[in-house]
Amino acid sequence: MKVKPRTLSGFMELLPEDQMKMERMMQILRDTYSLFAFYPLDTPVIEASDVLLAKGGGETEKQIYRFQKGDSDLSLRFDLTVPLAKYVAAHYGDLAFPFRRYQIGKVYRGERAQRGRFREFYQADIDVIGDGSLDIINEAEIPAIIYTAFTRLGLRRFQIKVNNRKLLNGFYAMNGMSEKASDIMRIVDKMDKIGEVKVKQMLIDELQMRPYKAENVLDFMAIRGSNAEIIERLESFRGMDATFDQGLDELRIVTGHLAAFGVPEENFAVDLRIARGLDYYTGTVYETELPDYPEIGSVCSGGRYDNLAEYYIDRPLPGVGISIGLTRLFYVLQEQKLLSDELPTAPCDVLVIPMTKELGPAVTAATAFRSAGIRCQIYAENRKFKAKMSYADRIGVPFAVLLGEDELAKGLLSLKNMETGEQLLLTAEEAAGIISEAVQKKNSAAPIRG
Amino acid sequence: MKVKPRTLSGFMELLPEDQMKMERMMQILRDTYSLFAFYPLDTPVIEASDVLLAKGGGETEKQIYRFQKGDSDLSLRFDLTVPLAKYVAAHYGDLAFPFRRYQIGKVYRGERAQRGRFREFYQADIDVIGDGSLDIINEAEIPAIIYTAFTRLGLRRFQIKVNNRKLLNGFYAMNGMSEKASDIMRIVDKMDKIGEVKVKQMLIDELQMRPYKAENVLDFMAIRGSNAEIIERLESFRGMDATFDQGLDELRIVTGHLAAFGVPEENFAVDLRIARGLDYYTGTVYETELPDYPEIGSVCSGGRYDNLAEYYIDRPLPGVGISIGLTRLFYVLQEQKLLSDELPTAPCDVLVIPMTKELGPAVTAATAFRSAGIRCQIYAENRKFKAKMSYADRIGVPFAVLLGEDELAKGLLSLKNMETGEQLLLTAEEAAGIISEAVQKKNSAAPIRG
Repeated sequence: MKVKPRTLSGFMELLPEDQMKMERMMQILRDTYSLFAFYPLDTPVIEASDVLLAKGGGETEKQIYRFQKGDSDLSLRFDLTVPLAKYVAAHYGDLAFPFRRYQIGKVYRGERAQRGRFREFYQADIDVIGDGSLDIINEAEIPAIIYTAFTRLGLRRFQIKVNNRKLLNGFYAMNGMSEKASDIMRIVDKMDKIGEVKVKQMLIDELQMRPYKAENVLDFMAIRGSNAEIIERLESFRGMDATFDQGLDELRIVTGHLAAFGVPEENFAVDLRIARGLDYYTGTVYETELPDYPEIGSVCSGGRYDNLAEYYIDRPLPGVGISIGLTRLFYVLQEQKLLSDELPTAPCDVLVIPMTKELGPAVTAATAFRSAGIRCQIYAENRKFKAKMSYADRIGVPFAVLLGEDELAKGLLSLKNMETGEQLLLTAEEAAGIISEAVQKKNSAAPIRG
Repeated sequence: MKVKPRTLSGFMELLPEDQMKMERMMQILRDTYSLFAFYPLDTPVIEASDVLLAKGGGETEKQIYRFQKGDSDLSLRFDLTVPLAKYVAAHYGDLAFPFRRYQIGKVYRGERAQRGRFREFYQADIDVIGDGSLDIINEAEIPAIIYTAFTRLGLRRFQIKVNNRKLLNGFYAMNGMSEKASDIMRIVDKMDKIGEVKVKQMLIDELQMRPYKAENVLDFMAIRGSNAEIIERLESFRGMDATFDQGLDELRIVTGHLAAFGVPEENFAVDLRIARGLDYYTGTVYETELPDYPEIGSVCSGGRYDNLAEYYIDRPLPGVGISIGLTRLFYVLQEQKLLSDELPTAPCDVLVIPMTKELGPAVTAATAFRSAGIRCQIYAENRKFKAKMSYADRIGVPFAVLLGEDELAKGLLSLKNMETGEQLLLTAEEAAGIISEAVQKKNSAAPIRG
């Protein structure tokens, strides 16, 4: 009796060609995060339940993978932020602050199985953690990191949307709406879906707001324009609330350094509707959208917070961080056919095919190619010539090297360009040169269509 | 009430500097495996228990992390081989064979907590899977992969030990010991620990072997010499058992291609005592030892097998693979002080320190460095100069850039070499050139001491 080889639903398992694309995306994120001076970090997938759930409650707790092993109550991590908080608190004395780390790892949430929803998925996070304080420049730098990452991934049309929670909190305070702030944001968040008229009605009906106050909120949220224009409009509120004024100062700094950080204005927008939940973030907040695919939502989000690890230590540890939901991003890119076909997905750059019983020359050629940094595979299976060439086609290798009687007699090899069909009789060195050049060109392709 | 921020025992969690070294090791393995034409692969950490335990039984079953989630009986993978078998069986129609994949991932075994034993650990595996058959050249290539990987990691003194299970099975058959083969191998495996005399006594006492037969076994295991000498000795057994003869032919091919694969003889040895468990492997088997640290045991092992996925599909899928227990390897390298100090472990190559309130020039300099591929961090925290320099020292950054009144007035920057203390007034471009050159040199260091 055979067991049916199946993969759990909600768990992504890619075919090799797709995995190559995913791997390339991860490598670009690792490289970009490193460029911006983040340490790589790795923490266990399993933690003690009381540690992981120190904050407790909420939607996540129901979804958590929690189980007993021996005497231990264990849980799988459901994000990378709680493990970071634990890490920083546990190793506080061994870290230099600001502490900058990236982590790309799997997290687990037992969500209802649904197309495009994953129970195991990668998050790719960065955070900068200060000890007691953290300079605003760290918030200003985040758009540059997002911009560099997505540009390197191959995206051209994306927009980093930024807001500041102090602006929102200050605005609600100056309008005497602080208590209703969280309900207002929940309703305003529906703007894109239901439109301004219905949002206004909900504010009036559900929150018993006076119509002119609801309009105030909607007018504020509707402020648009260039960074300079928006800031000018916001300046008209200055002096009414200290928190608002501080938020405005921060927004000035964040937008003020954009050019020096190399972020074009077309990839950036202040958007006063961005809120990102109520209780955690306290300063700049970020979302990243693809204007051509609004239904995808934000592909990279985060913000500034005041207290990373309050459940573990007394020390205030403010920070700023962003997270990319990599598995979901990959899924939607695949769905929208936005993964580039130009990126090579063959496991090798050249397939060396011996045509005689003598394998020595094939091994020698393969070793020479590898020494030159060329990814090389020897195909010596006992198959007919046609089957060998069809394997080469199937894996999509750009070059094949054929070693028959003729080549062996001359001490040369035949290099076949699998795309053009062109075949040349060359030395291994000459072949390596041609392959290297072609491969370098191919590898400059980004995983996402521009 | 604070929760104590602790990490479960048996779970490795590294400090940032050590994580950098681990990360570098992983990157070298990814690059090496890619060079030898293996696809990257990623499979879920969680599988259905009936799928993961299709083979059933054994020591691992007791150690497994198994739990219920809703109606599902789930388990965490305890190796990367079973998930590969499932993957190949499930996606059989979508794969081209031979199918070559590497996977570097965490696996879970609830072993007794013990120093140097891990419950969550990385394995770094490669396997080549054939469809119905698989050419011997794939077995011959494995030592080249091991050699390249460990050389790139920085190791010089290591030895790839090779044997062939057909030789052993054939030898036992020609001596009428086939039934006792597994017990003999279990006892012979203790040779290094208890010595030849005691092994012989155990063979006689426990297995009721006649003394001359026990001696036959010990004489065979003791065959030593160069590859050519060992093969010559083995040739004297030719003609007595077909399986033995086939194993000898295979060993001839494996050793015969070593030079063309670029593996020096000093890093290789045929060792007839290598067996690697009884029921799974059927051809060449591999272990890799560090002669200066015999207590570490094998750091890279594997072999040829006939049937990867027999519990899932009828199709015979022979393969050959090796596995590096990366977490344990890292642990013992650390214990033995074999991790190199030369490898840079700072999160950045240069720390840009603004000395005035004006942050613009620091941002511009940082952006220029990053465009030149230099890992750069801006340190703008409101601290005294001494604290800033002590941060630079603490993270071990090789260069600092200082931007004071003087530098700003001249439109230049001061580049401070943190090792020599030398400080130069330069343009950003000049500084980038100096940093790049130094960093390139530093990054050529390997993570392991030679």
